Amino acid sequence: MNILGCGSALPTTRHFASSHVLNIREKLFMIDCGEGTQLQLRRSKLKFSRLNHIFISHLHGDHCFGLMGLLSTFDLLGRTAAMHIYAHPDLESILGMQLDYFCKKMDYEVVFHPINPAKVETIYEDRSVSVTTIPLIHRIPTCGFLFSEKKTPDHIKRDMIDYYNIPTYDINRIKNGEDYVLEDGTIIANNRLTTPSTPPRKYAYCSDTLYHRQIIEQVKGIDLLYHEATFADCDLSKAQTTFHSTALQAATIARDADVKQLVIGHFSVRYEDEDVLLKEAQSVFPNTILATENLKIVL
Amino acid sequence: MNILGCGSALPTTRHFASSHVLNIREKLFMIDCGEGTQLQLRRSKLKFSRLNHIFISHLHGDHCFGLMGLLSTFDLLGRTAAMHIYAHPDLESILGMQLDYFCKKMDYEVVFHPINPAKVETIYEDRSVSVTTIPLIHRIPTCGFLFSEKKTPDHIKRDMIDYYNIPTYDINRIKNGEDYVLEDGTIIANNRLTTPSTPPRKYAYCSDTLYHRQIIEQVKGIDLLYHEATFADCDLSKAQTTFHSTALQAATIARDADVKQLVIGHFSVRYEDEDVLLKEAQSVFPNTILATENLKIVL
Repeated sequence: MNILGCGSALPTTRHFASSHVLNIREKLFMIDCGEGTQLQLRRSKLKFSRLNHIFISHLHGDHCFGLMGLLSTFDLLGRTAAMHIYAHPDLESILGMQLDYFCKKMDYEVVFHPINPAKVETIYEDRSVSVTTIPLIHRIPTCGFLFSEKKTPDHIKRDMIDYYNIPTYDINRIKNGEDYVLEDGTIIANNRLTTPSTPPRKYAYCSDTLYHRQIIEQVKGIDLLYHEATFADCDLSKAQTTFHSTALQAATIARDADVKQLVIGHFSVRYEDEDVLLKEAQSVFPNTILATENLKIVL
Repeated sequence: MNILGCGSALPTTRHFASSHVLNIREKLFMIDCGEGTQLQLRRSKLKFSRLNHIFISHLHGDHCFGLMGLLSTFDLLGRTAAMHIYAHPDLESILGMQLDYFCKKMDYEVVFHPINPAKVETIYEDRSVSVTTIPLIHRIPTCGFLFSEKKTPDHIKRDMIDYYNIPTYDINRIKNGEDYVLEDGTIIANNRLTTPSTPPRKYAYCSDTLYHRQIIEQVKGIDLLYHEATFADCDLSKAQTTFHSTALQAATIARDADVKQLVIGHFSVRYEDEDVLLKEAQSVFPNTILATENLKIVL
């Protein structure tokens, strides 16, 4: 997971607006695309051509004003592969109008997938991963995204395969969990022939939202939770009126959902020293880190 | 003159997209507003509230995709003063549609001034400065902008004023060039009573354009010319097909217009070492410098 930007609505010299990129088995998935995302993507050295899916959490500028620049750059670079965008239905006409004007005669298609942020729904699925919406509570319709990796086949034990002289065409079945039957009828249990593959990983992105305990159910036990922490607890009332969360609340969600690691971000410009937010979160959930531009977390 | 960005269409890790800000007697004037301009404006420490006029040369994304982010940030910051935007008429509906959606209930007005890039026209004027369009030749309608400072009143020689006992209420007339007549009818020539004020300064911004000798007339003898130099001379044919200029051509314009200084910018990403462009320009017009982010030139 690569963080391209983790600031909040106002520009600062410290942060870019929101954007994350997930690299799942060499396919890239972008979540949110604030202004400057294409610059940050260039800096990240991630391959532009590997990115085919962009998910937008909500239509506030700091989460989507970088889209036109990114799509227009792809056009200039001669992209031909379709780009899929998953967002609130309102974005389609806003983006469409700009694409019509600024990118006449594009060589690639922008495929728009309207999503309903109020519903839990699987909006994308391929052989490696599924993406499910996480309804959030913000000033406008907003959702987070849960990326769930699919299980990969188990690893075979080469020496056991050789020992039993198992032919190549049976190996895929064994990788996928089947036992093996010898010619004399003896059953060799699958766990004697394989070692388990890496357990599938899960990542959730939850920004922007009021403290919203309903998400706990969806992010239970996941490997990594990115949760907004716009404010510190001393500004709780500000968080409530603007429909944002405090660092303490983000950590409470992480603790109660028993996630493995928490990254907090979307910091208000008022905190010159973001360690205040980090310490606050760690007091409730020790395995918390601060988001920062160009941070890369390998799960 | 502050350069916020001087890259060309594709994002690089070296340059931001086009944007300049002029500070004329503490009023700020922005020319072009590519993506990331608001981040660069924040870095520049220029006061957001002093900026009331934005001039857009043409509607390619690298010259205007930063507008929505900038206007939206002004709204979040509680701006109330009107913002005037001077651009090709097509921008009005594109921007209007986005403002309607992303900035509902704005506390300030965006006043749109459509300009005709094909005509030389004074599109702005106040007590200190006038702004005139410079028609350019590009793939879409494009114009540059000539900023002409107005003459400030001359400085009075305090000792001469005292010597002739000239009353305070006559001083403004003398500052503006009038002679003074003593009670006995003696005429004291203005140049005995004043020293000339700083000569008014002129700055022109010409980007993007094909080599276009007609601009020489308009930029004759000015203090500073910013001229695009997207390509080196070895890529002249590329410059011609994309309607851009080479560094050599920019310098030829500067030399033939007898300007005092040339700044070249809008560099193509293909030149890792922009000194190639600088040397090429300097071979024709020695007083050339390379544009760079956060460069500030005081005239």
